[in-house]
Amino acid sequence: MQELKIYNSLTKKKELFKPIIPNHVGLYVCGPTVYSDVHLGNVRTFVSFDVVYRYLKFIGYNVRYVRNITDVGHLLNDADSGEDKIAKQAKLLNLEPMEVVQHYTNGFRDVMSKYNNISPSIEPTATGHIVEQIEMVQEILDEGFAYVSNGSVYFDVEKYNLSHNYGKLSGRKIEDLLSNTRELDGQEEKRNPLDFAIWKKADDSHIMKWNSPWGEGFPGWHLECSVMSTKYLGEKFDIHGGGMDLKFPHHECEIAQNVGAGNGDPVNYWMHGNMLTVNGQKMSKSAGNGFTPEQLATGDHPLLDKGYSEMVVRFFMLQSHYTSTLDFSNEALKGSEKGFEKMLKAYETLKTLVSSKESSVNIDDLKNRCYEAMNDDFNTPILIAHLFDGVKMINNVKDGRDTISGQDLALLNEIFDGFLVNVLGIKIETENNQSVDLSNDIMNMVLEIRNQAKQDKNYQLADEIRNRLTEINITIKDSKEGTSWELN
Amino acid sequence: MQELKIYNSLTKKKELFKPIIPNHVGLYVCGPTVYSDVHLGNVRTFVSFDVVYRYLKFIGYNVRYVRNITDVGHLLNDADSGEDKIAKQAKLLNLEPMEVVQHYTNGFRDVMSKYNNISPSIEPTATGHIVEQIEMVQEILDEGFAYVSNGSVYFDVEKYNLSHNYGKLSGRKIEDLLSNTRELDGQEEKRNPLDFAIWKKADDSHIMKWNSPWGEGFPGWHLECSVMSTKYLGEKFDIHGGGMDLKFPHHECEIAQNVGAGNGDPVNYWMHGNMLTVNGQKMSKSAGNGFTPEQLATGDHPLLDKGYSEMVVRFFMLQSHYTSTLDFSNEALKGSEKGFEKMLKAYETLKTLVSSKESSVNIDDLKNRCYEAMNDDFNTPILIAHLFDGVKMINNVKDGRDTISGQDLALLNEIFDGFLVNVLGIKIETENNQSVDLSNDIMNMVLEIRNQAKQDKNYQLADEIRNRLTEINITIKDSKEGTSWELN
Repeated sequence: MQELKIYNSLTKKKELFKPIIPNHVGLYVCGPTVYSDVHLGNVRTFVSFDVVYRYLKFIGYNVRYVRNITDVGHLLNDADSGEDKIAKQAKLLNLEPMEVVQHYTNGFRDVMSKYNNISPSIEPTATGHIVEQIEMVQEILDEGFAYVSNGSVYFDVEKYNLSHNYGKLSGRKIEDLLSNTRELDGQEEKRNPLDFAIWKKADDSHIMKWNSPWGEGFPGWHLECSVMSTKYLGEKFDIHGGGMDLKFPHHECEIAQNVGAGNGDPVNYWMHGNMLTVNGQKMSKSAGNGFTPEQLATGDHPLLDKGYSEMVVRFFMLQSHYTSTLDFSNEALKGSEKGFEKMLKAYETLKTLVSSKESSVNIDDLKNRCYEAMNDDFNTPILIAHLFDGVKMINNVKDGRDTISGQDLALLNEIFDGFLVNVLGIKIETENNQSVDLSNDIMNMVLEIRNQAKQDKNYQLADEIRNRLTEINITIKDSKEGTSWELN
Repeated sequence: MQELKIYNSLTKKKELFKPIIPNHVGLYVCGPTVYSDVHLGNVRTFVSFDVVYRYLKFIGYNVRYVRNITDVGHLLNDADSGEDKIAKQAKLLNLEPMEVVQHYTNGFRDVMSKYNNISPSIEPTATGHIVEQIEMVQEILDEGFAYVSNGSVYFDVEKYNLSHNYGKLSGRKIEDLLSNTRELDGQEEKRNPLDFAIWKKADDSHIMKWNSPWGEGFPGWHLECSVMSTKYLGEKFDIHGGGMDLKFPHHECEIAQNVGAGNGDPVNYWMHGNMLTVNGQKMSKSAGNGFTPEQLATGDHPLLDKGYSEMVVRFFMLQSHYTSTLDFSNEALKGSEKGFEKMLKAYETLKTLVSSKESSVNIDDLKNRCYEAMNDDFNTPILIAHLFDGVKMINNVKDGRDTISGQDLALLNEIFDGFLVNVLGIKIETENNQSVDLSNDIMNMVLEIRNQAKQDKNYQLADEIRNRLTEINITIKDSKEGTSWELN
């Protein structure tokens, strides 16, 4: 097994990864809230953890990857007051909340598939685990870390902090948090403004609600991840991922809930993906710089010069390390697109390379560097840089400036199929479809007619064919092996 | 609104459809059990109800279409004993049951998408409604139509039948059912062999289980549909669909549960799709004639001469009425494939037709006949026959044997876009992709060179081009408007 190092947000150190059960990894990633189109920042997070999942499997781990769907319980403001986000949207559209949920869940799956993200092993929903959530609320109550107030149940942060460290993940101090708290609606039910709802009483107008020992209500948002990670990965598991914005309060509360329920500290390695910016500014709807994945694909947004395919955007995202911010700009995207096309062209060339007796290129070294990059906290930008070294080798071998042995050629294929296709998840659009075959057939015929014309000394026709092909952006190249063609 | 007639399995009559709320339809269809690949018979059922959903929307109804996913509770044998199917499969694979569920749910969604079935408005899961199922069990107990026995809860069929009619949907008599009952394991818990579990006690080895007022257990299979249809469509809703094999006991039990919980008779129109046969025999794995949707697509099964695209199979399925059995044979499939290609070719031709001043064809009549067919209990085979009349018109207009006015041409387009694409859900593969454009560009050049050769009286070159195109299956046709080409 490779020696993999992971930056652990909890210890703030790069640590050697040691799984709890040899060869197995439990991976939990906070998924989307399905009350609106998926945010591009979330897409980046899910691409980052898709590569984590892919690499863990690639180096031989048996991974159970759980990514939840939040279909209830995400409140409108941090103070836990206000309506459930999904119910509110449903009322506006006059729909059943689960119809809204279905609509946006379908949209989310569609985007994930276009970005070539592998489906997680389990995609559990919050509404699918109401029984288990009620049970965990009861456990936390039994342990004395929560209290019932007016039909809601709140986690008692101050009491918890007497014996445990609330803030250990985010590095926040409870005193600072307290002094920064504003008084907001609904706070009167709490003993302490930092307390958060783990079960929330539903009023009559609330559509999504369930019976519980504390009356009709719905689970607090933070609770579902504690419940579902415990159910599917156990009380202690290997890796928990999510966007950096979830570190506080969401993940901090998750730890508190698991510990408060008597299950102990849940996670060995916390991983957080960084944010997106647009032309240097935070992406947000209100700032008018928040384009959707679909707008990015079509280019249909004032800030975009053109559209970019999902694979180009994926490649672009992976050219930054997941712990760095990633800035979207037309220039940067166009640059990635160029690199992406160069990479894909080299991949195609690789499949047609001819080996020699000896190699003048060092493929073993390239392979080692690729592993080293990924073993260093999934460093995809470095990996991509190494793959571009491979691109150079491919083109040199093709042009006769370098040679490659049969064994090395097989290894080079293995590297590109392994790291570009499998690990980075770049989908190589197959050119073997019928239409391309058709173009090839017709073009072969055209080139034969042109060669015949040249043999017949009908240079006028031969030149006309070349000129007309140029008009439709096809270049033909004559060489001693024959004539080849390519699209410009 | 169209006058739609539906064959109601409950009354065994074709009835005029009247929705409970004007302009709105609540439609519930029993979905798949996701513990194995989806059966082709189920695919047919879902295609049939996809067309029902599409047509109801097409004629202006606002439809809420609920199709559940059974991810727990479907027992291995009818006697309600034995293990839950999903848990059993999970143990064999040494997987978490929900991992099995996720795998087959993904596969199911993939098949549905390939068959161009529209996603339902809501796709609720059985595990997502444990709270609601426990509540309905309690309601049935409270009404006196169920009893607790050794940690399980059974529906009391005999008692229910004293005041209601158990068997009204399937036409079975309780006396006959009783005399046909075999003694099976687990029957000793029941008062009567016809009683069915609505909550089943789970032993220690059972993985999928939840706490309930009757101890740890899981819901009976029949229960989820009663619960989810009530939750999302109300106690009384318009249409309930499913395969004919579900009529008894599943749907019979559903009615009993809804009535037994005090909610009244749930459904106005029961619709049942008929079964698949293969070469005249029931399709089943044990008979060796059960090919999967994937095998049907690739042709990779001893009984299949070749593969058929999902759109061809969809077309083939819709060439039978949903209440008729449908027999799969190579001959029948090949026949449908031919018809399908003819239909698609005509659809393409339609888009290039030129109108005249007057029509020699009656498009209004064609339109009326299409509506009549669908209004007659969704008679898709008749609709397709009418569309083939349209195909004849299209080809006649193209060849100059008939003429069509501008207004009629617009209407004819409306009919094909409406009934073929929207209602029947036939996906027209767009030919506007880049590769096809490329082939067009090259072919246009080739044809120009050939025309130039003819003008230059270089008939040798002109003929050679024609012959070489024939070799790659391209036919060119010379006419006074110019030269066109097509793939054979």
